Amino acid sequence: MAAELTAHELIAKHRPTLDQALEAIRTRAYWSPHPEHPKAYGENGSLDAAAGKAAFDALLGGRLDLGQPGTDDWVGGEASPYGIELGVEYPHADIDVLLPAMKAGQRAWRDAGAEMRAVVCLEILKRISDRTHEFAHAVMHTSGQAFMMAFQAGGPHAQDRGLEAVAYAYVEQVRTPDTAEWTKPQGKRDPLALTKQFTPVPRGIALLIGCNTFPTWNGYPGLFASLATGNAVLVKPHPRAVLPLALTVQVARQVLAEAGFDPNLVALAAERPGEGIAKTLATRPEIRIIDYTGSTVFGDWLEANARQAQVYTEKAGVNTVIVDSTDDYKGMLSNLAFSLSLYSGQMCTTPQNLLIPRDGIRTEEGPRTFDEVAGDLARAVDGLLGDDARANALLGAIVNPDVKARLEAAAGLGEVALASREISNPEFPDAVVRTPVIVKLDGAKPDDEAAYMSECFGPVSFAVAVDSAADAVELLRRTVREKGAMTVGAYTTDSEVEQAIQEACLEEAAQLSLNLTGGVYVNQTAAFSDFHGSGGNPAANSALCDGAFVANRFRVVEVRREA
Amino acid sequence: MAAELTAHELIAKHRPTLDQALEAIRTRAYWSPHPEHPKAYGENGSLDAAAGKAAFDALLGGRLDLGQPGTDDWVGGEASPYGIELGVEYPHADIDVLLPAMKAGQRAWRDAGAEMRAVVCLEILKRISDRTHEFAHAVMHTSGQAFMMAFQAGGPHAQDRGLEAVAYAYVEQVRTPDTAEWTKPQGKRDPLALTKQFTPVPRGIALLIGCNTFPTWNGYPGLFASLATGNAVLVKPHPRAVLPLALTVQVARQVLAEAGFDPNLVALAAERPGEGIAKTLATRPEIRIIDYTGSTVFGDWLEANARQAQVYTEKAGVNTVIVDSTDDYKGMLSNLAFSLSLYSGQMCTTPQNLLIPRDGIRTEEGPRTFDEVAGDLARAVDGLLGDDARANALLGAIVNPDVKARLEAAAGLGEVALASREISNPEFPDAVVRTPVIVKLDGAKPDDEAAYMSECFGPVSFAVAVDSAADAVELLRRTVREKGAMTVGAYTTDSEVEQAIQEACLEEAAQLSLNLTGGVYVNQTAAFSDFHGSGGNPAANSALCDGAFVANRFRVVEVRREA
Repeated sequence: MAAELTAHELIAKHRPTLDQALEAIRTRAYWSPHPEHPKAYGENGSLDAAAGKAAFDALLGGRLDLGQPGTDDWVGGEASPYGIELGVEYPHADIDVLLPAMKAGQRAWRDAGAEMRAVVCLEILKRISDRTHEFAHAVMHTSGQAFMMAFQAGGPHAQDRGLEAVAYAYVEQVRTPDTAEWTKPQGKRDPLALTKQFTPVPRGIALLIGCNTFPTWNGYPGLFASLATGNAVLVKPHPRAVLPLALTVQVARQVLAEAGFDPNLVALAAERPGEGIAKTLATRPEIRIIDYTGSTVFGDWLEANARQAQVYTEKAGVNTVIVDSTDDYKGMLSNLAFSLSLYSGQMCTTPQNLLIPRDGIRTEEGPRTFDEVAGDLARAVDGLLGDDARANALLGAIVNPDVKARLEAAAGLGEVALASREISNPEFPDAVVRTPVIVKLDGAKPDDEAAYMSECFGPVSFAVAVDSAADAVELLRRTVREKGAMTVGAYTTDSEVEQAIQEACLEEAAQLSLNLTGGVYVNQTAAFSDFHGSGGNPAANSALCDGAFVANRFRVVEVRREA
Repeated sequence: MAAELTAHELIAKHRPTLDQALEAIRTRAYWSPHPEHPKAYGENGSLDAAAGKAAFDALLGGRLDLGQPGTDDWVGGEASPYGIELGVEYPHADIDVLLPAMKAGQRAWRDAGAEMRAVVCLEILKRISDRTHEFAHAVMHTSGQAFMMAFQAGGPHAQDRGLEAVAYAYVEQVRTPDTAEWTKPQGKRDPLALTKQFTPVPRGIALLIGCNTFPTWNGYPGLFASLATGNAVLVKPHPRAVLPLALTVQVARQVLAEAGFDPNLVALAAERPGEGIAKTLATRPEIRIIDYTGSTVFGDWLEANARQAQVYTEKAGVNTVIVDSTDDYKGMLSNLAFSLSLYSGQMCTTPQNLLIPRDGIRTEEGPRTFDEVAGDLARAVDGLLGDDARANALLGAIVNPDVKARLEAAAGLGEVALASREISNPEFPDAVVRTPVIVKLDGAKPDDEAAYMSECFGPVSFAVAVDSAADAVELLRRTVREKGAMTVGAYTTDSEVEQAIQEACLEEAAQLSLNLTGGVYVNQTAAFSDFHGSGGNPAANSALCDGAFVANRFRVVEVRREA
């Protein structure tokens, strides 16, 4: 069967984008080929807002038949955090049939080489990009992100992260040439001469274990890094966030088939309620790579038990912001208010602990006491979320009952500086929308420490009184070392304090944002430029994206002969 | 205190070599800056043969005081496989004193940056290179390698592998720029602009666990990869092969101090007989990287238990050569005879199982039966080792009593095609020198399978009768998958058989040498060009040397501010 998409066409179409991505990860300047604005879509085959919404609506209540081998049942049952039932059914796989089928196409995929794999991946990303509006609704109604965030973080930003992984994977594989002539002088005798061939080979089948809050953003790096390095990829979505990854699998299978490859190189493993297939899959001998985003408990279990696989985990952490001093008090407050509010604090990068000296801070408006800072921040959040429409657009919905329960319990942990409010969503009356709570704690009290030294995932932050900037740095250091951190923020005008914070972050391997007062927030990282996590503290054993994230997903096999 | 070696001097001296190494790992053509010929030494500060021997002799019976903190005792007691007592004493460390001391200099070493670390490492290698003659005796009298092999493999080839690791480490660290300006357009509004700093940071203290047979060759890649990426390195040598690594530590400490760094960035952990400190060290929280060469049992233990560390292991494997057909029968026999004899088969890369069809093979001289091939190979080994002086120069000495016991037991495993002989060494009458044994086994017999499917480290090879070339490929595949392999060799003139063998090696990630009949042997790999192991089968979880070997020894910490 002739492929509908030839290597020549795909390379001509996507090689320029790949080259731009390679340049971007080298310079780390701003770059993205994926438009952030919803109105940018609707031409050249991409769906506009109405078409994307219609495509999403057409999925509801239907069956997403991926044509996978070994489908023994149909499963589904996702309920949107916005209160609607998705009613989409997905194939349930007999893994003893599916896993062998996924291996059948690996040889041709390996032999296609790094460049062909890269441009096939870019074609998959392009088709996903064209359907960004449709994916946005799918992400919104599984994660609870507000539409615009679901659109941007679940669409172009996720696609950027996927493309970034493809670029890293490509460049890693071509560091070794396909062939080499090796000629070693032997004095007066003839030289020794060998011809050497080098082939990147995949490890086997990769397992992607998706998360509830960022199914595409956190899923695409591992998926594309594994696929681009020649592995088949089995996608095991979070049971509450299947649709975005099922659509991704669908697109990948279509593109693979059109390019002449076995579509079973990418497959979905949806599960019945309570089936818990991740543990079963993770320890199968065929699974040689695992990417996981989620709880520390299960991430640690994977690292300890999936010994046959390379395991890449992003787990829980406790993110800290040190507030020492500022020359832009209002800017700091509004920046922090936005960080705490965005997606109701349900980001792995949202600050949790705000360390503030108990004697107060210095600002360009004069000193502010600890209580004034906490109160002013509470007012900044209130101001930001005062309008219900804006609040809904920023907060999104609470993703699951556990987050709601933690939020409600948080008010009992200490003196409440800002109480959480309920916001009604006129479009989705059943959505659970809440503003963040800020609770004051004392860094020196053991009871309080039990609260601020645990991750309280959701819209919960602690204003923690510390003795001094030095005390704050010491607590930051201890928090990162013991609990991990995806992000650290700091506000200071004191160069010695800044140095101490930087040194703590360098020693504990935490990513630091300093004195953000404008339109960039500590919880956001941009593909091609920012690293997401460091891979060097307990919050994650890998960073998105770097050489280490891709280099061990394949091996290089050498065949040498006398020349 | 002003450094005796300035960054400017070191960069001027070593940057050209570093650049050549970077080019070599990219093209994988032949290159080495370290001369292989003993007579190449003696000028420009390097020791000639007599001076190197004198330097070695001066070490015997003495105390190697490295000036390490926490030295609480002196230990030693190495006995040369050639029968002499070395009598060198080394510091024994109180690790509760030594480990904290090793961390003291890490900040300055980190802040020095990737290029300075690389050239300091190159200066260490240069000083070691100058003392190659001295190191050769140290390697000879700990590993049992014959002098010329100890000189080359323990000298220039080991130095090449160290330099290769420095080159990989350097290029990996500079893939991300030191700084970036990130400017994101915002339509009509001002762009978002950030200044970003990126700093490679070490993981902590690396532990190198050395081996008995190749203390420098197998030790230098991990040592230099860790040091060049900013880590301190604690060297725990094999108790029978301390001297070569102790001298290495001594040189490293001298160079670090002269360059203005803390010498405690590299330290030795010698142990009392039976102390078994590797387990204790490997699970210390300060140890974040481990490099290990040795038994599968302890390698697996490290991978399972040293969970706080990145663990790089080279363990046991069962190396296979498939003999299907050849157009240079004599060349094949002499090449194989050399491979089996070199260092008495005590290389992790020595072939063990020679798979030969029970119906015989095709050669340019006509067909040869299974028994004829085994007999001809036996005669080729006998011919190669017929002269005692030549035999001593090739075989070296049996490294320890375990190898001798295995060799003696092997004759009882089947019909002996070539019996092992004792060779006397006039210079070292107490050396245990033995020629290889070749035992015939039947691939179809379960009793025989127990023998050929286990690593029998030492001068023991099995001529295994198989049903066909296809059967041989299937057994190769199973052997690599279940037992691992550092090397695979094959002789065939049949392109279909060649394809099948290649495919098996690609799928099982084994390094393949095809039809070697000249002066290159399956057991040898050259730095900058050949990969040693693949990291993709049970024999080793990493390859020497590639991106994956270095990329996770450091992390990159980003600090970003509004521009």
